[in-house]
Amino acid sequence: MKLFEPVTINGLTLANRVVLPAMVTRLSGEDGFVNDDIRRRYLRFARGGPGLIVVEAMSVHGGKSGPLLRLSSDEFVPGHADLARRIHDISPSKVVPQIIHFLKIARSGWRQKVADLGPEDLSEIVAQHGAAAGRARAAGYDGVELHMAHAYTLSSFLSRLNRRPDDYGRSLENRMRLPVEVIRRVRAEVGADFPVGVRFDGEECIKDGYTVVDAREIALRMAREGVDWISVSAGGKFEDAIHKPGQPLYPYTGYSGDRCMPGAAYPDGANASLPEAIKRHLNAHGLFTPVVATGKIRTPELAEALLAEGRADLIGMARALLADPDWVRKVASGRSDHLVRCVYGNICKNLDENFRKVVCVLWPKGSLQAPASDDAVAPRWGETGAALRAEAAPSGVRVSWAEATDNEAVYGYEILRSVDGGSFEHVHSVKTTCWTDHAVAAGARYRYAVRAYDLAGNRTPTSNAADIELSAEAGADPGAAKAAGEAAS
Amino acid sequence: MKLFEPVTINGLTLANRVVLPAMVTRLSGEDGFVNDDIRRRYLRFARGGPGLIVVEAMSVHGGKSGPLLRLSSDEFVPGHADLARRIHDISPSKVVPQIIHFLKIARSGWRQKVADLGPEDLSEIVAQHGAAAGRARAAGYDGVELHMAHAYTLSSFLSRLNRRPDDYGRSLENRMRLPVEVIRRVRAEVGADFPVGVRFDGEECIKDGYTVVDAREIALRMAREGVDWISVSAGGKFEDAIHKPGQPLYPYTGYSGDRCMPGAAYPDGANASLPEAIKRHLNAHGLFTPVVATGKIRTPELAEALLAEGRADLIGMARALLADPDWVRKVASGRSDHLVRCVYGNICKNLDENFRKVVCVLWPKGSLQAPASDDAVAPRWGETGAALRAEAAPSGVRVSWAEATDNEAVYGYEILRSVDGGSFEHVHSVKTTCWTDHAVAAGARYRYAVRAYDLAGNRTPTSNAADIELSAEAGADPGAAKAAGEAAS
Repeated sequence: MKLFEPVTINGLTLANRVVLPAMVTRLSGEDGFVNDDIRRRYLRFARGGPGLIVVEAMSVHGGKSGPLLRLSSDEFVPGHADLARRIHDISPSKVVPQIIHFLKIARSGWRQKVADLGPEDLSEIVAQHGAAAGRARAAGYDGVELHMAHAYTLSSFLSRLNRRPDDYGRSLENRMRLPVEVIRRVRAEVGADFPVGVRFDGEECIKDGYTVVDAREIALRMAREGVDWISVSAGGKFEDAIHKPGQPLYPYTGYSGDRCMPGAAYPDGANASLPEAIKRHLNAHGLFTPVVATGKIRTPELAEALLAEGRADLIGMARALLADPDWVRKVASGRSDHLVRCVYGNICKNLDENFRKVVCVLWPKGSLQAPASDDAVAPRWGETGAALRAEAAPSGVRVSWAEATDNEAVYGYEILRSVDGGSFEHVHSVKTTCWTDHAVAAGARYRYAVRAYDLAGNRTPTSNAADIELSAEAGADPGAAKAAGEAAS
Repeated sequence: MKLFEPVTINGLTLANRVVLPAMVTRLSGEDGFVNDDIRRRYLRFARGGPGLIVVEAMSVHGGKSGPLLRLSSDEFVPGHADLARRIHDISPSKVVPQIIHFLKIARSGWRQKVADLGPEDLSEIVAQHGAAAGRARAAGYDGVELHMAHAYTLSSFLSRLNRRPDDYGRSLENRMRLPVEVIRRVRAEVGADFPVGVRFDGEECIKDGYTVVDAREIALRMAREGVDWISVSAGGKFEDAIHKPGQPLYPYTGYSGDRCMPGAAYPDGANASLPEAIKRHLNAHGLFTPVVATGKIRTPELAEALLAEGRADLIGMARALLADPDWVRKVASGRSDHLVRCVYGNICKNLDENFRKVVCVLWPKGSLQAPASDDAVAPRWGETGAALRAEAAPSGVRVSWAEATDNEAVYGYEILRSVDGGSFEHVHSVKTTCWTDHAVAAGARYRYAVRAYDLAGNRTPTSNAADIELSAEAGADPGAAKAAGEAAS
């Protein structure tokens, strides 16, 4: 698979094409130091062996924020040096920090805007990025990623809504000016041989925001400035965020937030056209800066297809790796059927929004980290099998089954569904033994089955299948469904 | 070209694959009758010969609105019968009306919601659609299209934000219930042999709205209900519309409005992935209901590619046909270089928003209709040629040139641009003899040229080219550009 072909970026060889994009954990304190929980989180990721780990955004300045890592002064370096060393000790994964500058926000809903910044502010932002990147190098990180996406300072400069009347606003060239100054200062600070990546939005996903038409040009400029990779996100803006009284604005609460972290309602690879168009544009101009695709890429098949079809150079997976940090290890060893699959319910996003420690809803209750197990014994159904049933319910189809058992612990149940005789697809995972499918339509035939999985991702055999056909009569109650259970497996 | 292959839809043969989607003209009075301006507009479209003309949305009920056609009682039939007959007399184009039901809106910003409707309201909506479709048939139209897109009643039922607690809300099946009842009533009214199409959103483009994941299922259900074509739009919702004090909400003012009528900032075919996914889903289920792709499809190349690659069955072009109703005729006769090309400035959208008569900004000033001319004499440059110049300006690159002359009239100037030695692309059209390009970036080389065109789309030779290179120094003023004019052609 192309997914497991190494790639070298400015002298840095990644063992595979999987990138863990920066994902806030809220595990640090407000002091911004690397602590035990942070270390555990990233060492857990490292054990899974993604080609590149981007450690969550850490601030280049002293701006007040909720729990967030910092790289804003030298006192933070030892913690990062320790983290980088530990990761390198146990894993082939390369690791870089993402560095961020953000403006002020208040609980009133007020927020500082790019138009409020004076010339000294701009110089300071440039200098702060340079210094933080220097600290990243001093800490032994393998490179640094500059955060120019979402609602933060550099993204707000790139925004088509940046109407600053001076040389830093309005025209595309002016909007790129500060980001380019940052790139140049960072490069001057870290030297030519230290990998510097950028993450930015391929589309703002807000009214009058920029689209991939501008993003292509921005990427081209960054590539010409010698950036070593371009990681493409989308949305996540303040402009359409919903202000909750008494809370500071959280930039992932509007439509652009939906697009930034596409949930269950979105198709796989919802934003894949953005990196594709950017990569095509770079390549057409003779530039081959690696492009990272992100946004609900969860299956090995899609990840591989994006690479094989030349639509991306690297595959970013945040939530999929949160659900299963061993994704790479399992897929590389042909055990894709052992993956713990993210259900894109965005509980993690909700925890982040509320400044609570970010965990995965699939993990065992109370756990701050994904479980790790090398157990090879699969869970089993009891003597009467799974006894799966599917019944019409007022709001959809209710599926229920018997408990499975395991030598360690049953971790959850994967629900599989086929529509109108199609193949089984994973539609959800739960920890309980029942679930109601609300996404059903009259006139269709559904077949359900479940598999229990343990902490290592070993599965039971697929349960018996239960069929249900929903009447096509308009006005009919789903209760008119005809259900037929098959013999237990 | 596949674009000009006929296709038969439920007995109705379209001469080609181009569809004029419904586009409000604001040419009717508030009385809702077909008048002279409406007739002229659609006869002008018909002369161009698109396979199918969908006449702008007309209401099935007596709801108060701005200028809008109506089909809400029998008194409106004669006007439509006359329009349909006149179109058939002069053109091979088939013609269907789009019928619409909308809820109440007030200048205060208040709007009636689907949750406010009682059982009698729902029955009435179904009956009104049936009766209006019957009138469409009686008027001699070739079919009827049901408006289930954007901010209107049936779309609001399909919406994922439809939280009605009864059988008409929440689950996908319930959300489809009223639209399916409408489809069935319309079919019962018009008979099996009368083509009935549906237009709906492939994605709502609002927070928590549905995406193509639901749209695929909605389309499948509609296809199974025997709908004869599925026209795919996007966005255009009330939920993110911007309320202007004293004005009723206009559902195209938010991000979802940007996505509905993608402007200059958007790439061509911005929404093409939606019909593509829907068509793939239908076909995978053994259904081959024709799917219409829309959304900034303007070039013959893209239109043909979408068909040839099996990503759509029909191509909807609204603004491109408003700019040049002769699009089909010109492309079919190998005269694509005579097209008057839409610049996607969305002045037409703005006129609609303000209840003003919708015209194209490219048309001669004061004209209510696109000019028509079969003149074959091209405009000419004067003795000194176009004398095109490109100069650095504070906000970009200013391009200016000399006037051209024509035996009838010069209609406008097309500005062509090449970036970094790439091929010339049409970037804008103007009626004046200068223009400033704000979408330029330092470090790039630009080449500009212009062509004048006349009322029939005949072109002058391309002007001399002017080169300009913008300095790549960050902080540099665009004034540092090096410009080089070539010898006049």
